[in-house]
Amino acid sequence: MVKLVFARHGQSEWNLANLFTGWADVDLSEEGTQQAIDAGKLIKEAGIEFDIAYTSVLKRAIKTTNLALEYSDQLWVPVVKSWRLNERHYGGLTGLNKADAAVKYGDDQVHTWRRSYDVLPPAMARDDENSAHGDRRYAALQDSLVPDAENLKVTLERALPFWEDEIAPALKDGKNVFVGAHGNSIRALVKQIEGLGDDEIVGVEIPNFPPLVYDFDENLNVVDKYYLGK
Amino acid sequence: MVKLVFARHGQSEWNLANLFTGWADVDLSEEGTQQAIDAGKLIKEAGIEFDIAYTSVLKRAIKTTNLALEYSDQLWVPVVKSWRLNERHYGGLTGLNKADAAVKYGDDQVHTWRRSYDVLPPAMARDDENSAHGDRRYAALQDSLVPDAENLKVTLERALPFWEDEIAPALKDGKNVFVGAHGNSIRALVKQIEGLGDDEIVGVEIPNFPPLVYDFDENLNVVDKYYLGK
Repeated sequence: MVKLVFARHGQSEWNLANLFTGWADVDLSEEGTQQAIDAGKLIKEAGIEFDIAYTSVLKRAIKTTNLALEYSDQLWVPVVKSWRLNERHYGGLTGLNKADAAVKYGDDQVHTWRRSYDVLPPAMARDDENSAHGDRRYAALQDSLVPDAENLKVTLERALPFWEDEIAPALKDGKNVFVGAHGNSIRALVKQIEGLGDDEIVGVEIPNFPPLVYDFDENLNVVDKYYLGK
Repeated sequence: MVKLVFARHGQSEWNLANLFTGWADVDLSEEGTQQAIDAGKLIKEAGIEFDIAYTSVLKRAIKTTNLALEYSDQLWVPVVKSWRLNERHYGGLTGLNKADAAVKYGDDQVHTWRRSYDVLPPAMARDDENSAHGDRRYAALQDSLVPDAENLKVTLERALPFWEDEIAPALKDGKNVFVGAHGNSIRALVKQIEGLGDDEIVGVEIPNFPPLVYDFDENLNVVDKYYLGK
């Protein structure tokens, strides 16, 4: 039996300020840092030993991963960082306060952008300081892969190859896997693992804490699903 | 022109207590943590942008690497961890206070173990809590590769393939490289880079701070060598 542990990053500074974040590379808040440390302690208490860890190229997920590994005494475990595990790109909403966005665009529109499966928010301007275009970390990607805005559908589509090419093969190889990522990239993987429909995944919420665990048999069937420490 | 930046890990808790450390996985001291942060700030001031980072499987080097990347605003850079960049394994001296070791074995003997090129210290017992045998992080290695003690010669021999297989190809590929490692694994690479003799490398000291930079031309000839911030 192998284990896959999902840790959504701890609370970020923009979560705290109630801003749309997306690909903006904001830091963990003090509470978020403590959540990552506590995630590591829960992993240690549960005696889970990882063979590999995956995270995004955004610091709130990377720091969550590093702290969770450090506080479970396995900081030496290999960590692979991929843009495919990034949060959903929130386009032109990035950096807007959620209340201000509602005033500007109307409650219904903002609700649709947040909760629909396939409606795109407005695109981020290419000269926005948070634009992924021109950001060195995405320079090796085909330009068509670098988004200006994403809905959940697009997020799932670009996260899925990472499941198929990296995570699922590691699990099938008997490896215990840690994934330190984001609400929507974790949703993408949960949709795949549980075979959820497009309408079902929209209602799934991933908490910042505690970590979510899946136990799999050798054919990658889910044997158990639970939150650590609960 | 490409850059290779060496950061020996910041002061560890055992450096502070003047204990032989080797492969014992001790943490950074408070001062060592600050040194790693300051290394990151110096890298940022110098405007050095890395394409890849390498470190050992010991937490004092991994944390130094992560902090240096974080404080130079490039935590997303890929980090590869390898046992080949570990500190010299100090065998049976591991955990001994350096003054106590001198009382137990005599000043001359301890000096020889510390400063000779090819004299081995006493082997660590396989049931020592710090033994690498039975440690999960070395489980994938051939048992003959897992040391019970190392001299500088052996340390260089097991570090060198990592230079040849990983670091040198990255530099030749035009990548700027960060290496967060240890006094003796960095010496191994410095010996190779500068073509030093066995007797010459014994006298080379690598400080915990600041980072050491080599600039190379496209044929991996050294164009410049300097310490950051000096």
